[in-house]
Amino acid sequence: MNSIDVKSIDDKVSKFIEERDWDQFHSIKNLVMALSVEASELVEIFQWSSEEVSNQVNDDEKLKQKVSEEIADIFIYLMRIAKKSGIDIEKSCLDKVEANSQKYPVSKSKGSSKKYTEL
Amino acid sequence: MNSIDVKSIDDKVSKFIEERDWDQFHSIKNLVMALSVEASELVEIFQWSSEEVSNQVNDDEKLKQKVSEEIADIFIYLMRIAKKSGIDIEKSCLDKVEANSQKYPVSKSKGSSKKYTEL
Amino acid sequence: MNSIDVKSIDDKVSKFIEERDWDQFHSIKNLVMALSVEASELVEIFQWSSEEVSNQVNDDEKLKQKVSEEIADIFIYLMRIAKKSGIDIEKSCLDKVEANSQKYPVSKSKGSSKKYTEL
Amino acid sequence: MNSIDVKSIDDKVSKFIEERDWDQFHSIKNLVMALSVEASELVEIFQWSSEEVSNQVNDDEKLKQKVSEEIADIFIYLMRIAKKSGIDIEKSCLDKVEANSQKYPVSKSKGSSKKYTEL
Repeated sequence: MNSIDVKSIDDKVSKFIEERDWDQFHSIKNLVMALSVEASELVEIFQWSSEEVSNQVNDDEKLKQKVSEEIADIFIYLMRIAKKSGIDIEKSCLDKVEANSQKYPVSKSKGSSKKYTEL
Repeated sequence: MNSIDVKSIDDKVSKFIEERDWDQFHSIKNLVMALSVEASELVEIFQWSSEEVSNQVNDDEKLKQKVSEEIADIFIYLMRIAKKSGIDIEKSCLDKVEANSQKYPVSKSKGSSKKYTEL
Repeated sequence: MNSIDVKSIDDKVSKFIEERDWDQFHSIKNLVMALSVEASELVEIFQWSSEEVSNQVNDDEKLKQKVSEEIADIFIYLMRIAKKSGIDIEKSCLDKVEANSQKYPVSKSKGSSKKYTEL
Repeated sequence: MNSIDVKSIDDKVSKFIEERDWDQFHSIKNLVMALSVEASELVEIFQWSSEEVSNQVNDDEKLKQKVSEEIADIFIYLMRIAKKSGIDIEKSCLDKVEANSQKYPVSKSKGSSKKYTEL
């Protein structure tokens, strides 16, 4: 997975939505709700699992399929929110890693899971 | 935004995590929790907004910056979960749109926001 | 609804869990995940509704039943997390309203939905 | 914690909201969003913790205080959603435990964390 061809996904998703006349429901407010619901469906898969078992997704085809579907739902909503907001996901990520490098200096955060507000 | 160069983001994120020795916290279980928390931070931005106002992100630089940061956090966690699970996000999305086309036939779902289980 | 008889609910829930030997899955970490998943199931009910329609739960028996079930799931997990954490929900709420009165002075927050960090 | 005096909490919360003229923002749609955001703030506290550490809330005053505040936020929103929906939380819970007893027969679910749809 070196890159994601967003255009080809967006073409298919846009056609799907247009055929069903669903854009009328897709305010950004509603799309972020839907994204959070999908994120929770991913959480639900692992809520009673140990951390060890959660790390074995790649060895369990049925589990991997479920995770793959939730990842798709999350990415599709994320892509639509970004598009409607005029946001470039790649640029956002590169900027965020840069910002986090400032918020979490190696000297203070190495080996610690504390939030930057508690460092 | 025609494509996302996942490799360049992942290179930077992996370096960031390695320098801080944070991979020890990144079981898939924990990463899905973190992803859902970031999704809720996106929800928080819009919880008291009308749908109309939510659609104006692109016209409000300060709001756009906040949304951009949450989108980055969500994508970075999503990318890491996918990588640890051996999942290709692009393929997952194309498969999911295909599956949804079956679950939501145009004839039954046009103009309706009902879930497929209620169609 | 002047009061909630927590003891009678907890007695039934504890018996239910004991019969199924489920307490082994109920670390506080797992219970907060489960609570957030139930909260999202409540969100899912309203994700495509207008605010106006969302306010009519009490007039729609089928919708009210769905909301009632999610509210129950959320309260049951909340009660269990509180019990395992040695927390008294009533006291927590009274303390929190008091604290919020300080964080959100009427003079600054009247009619505004801004977060206290932005006032 | 044998019971929760909902009326005394609701009196204080209603006064707090009225003084700030905030009911205008409190559609049920918005309240369920806010509830899910608070649930995620509870998740955030435990996202990098082991299950073992999560079970020690009662021994750590600072942690207990943070958990107590999130529990309060969740309960206050839950109470308001229930009130606006004409739902009695106690009754909802008793009904739900009863329904779950049917969905999860002891013979099939003892010692298993599987969802009823997978039993």
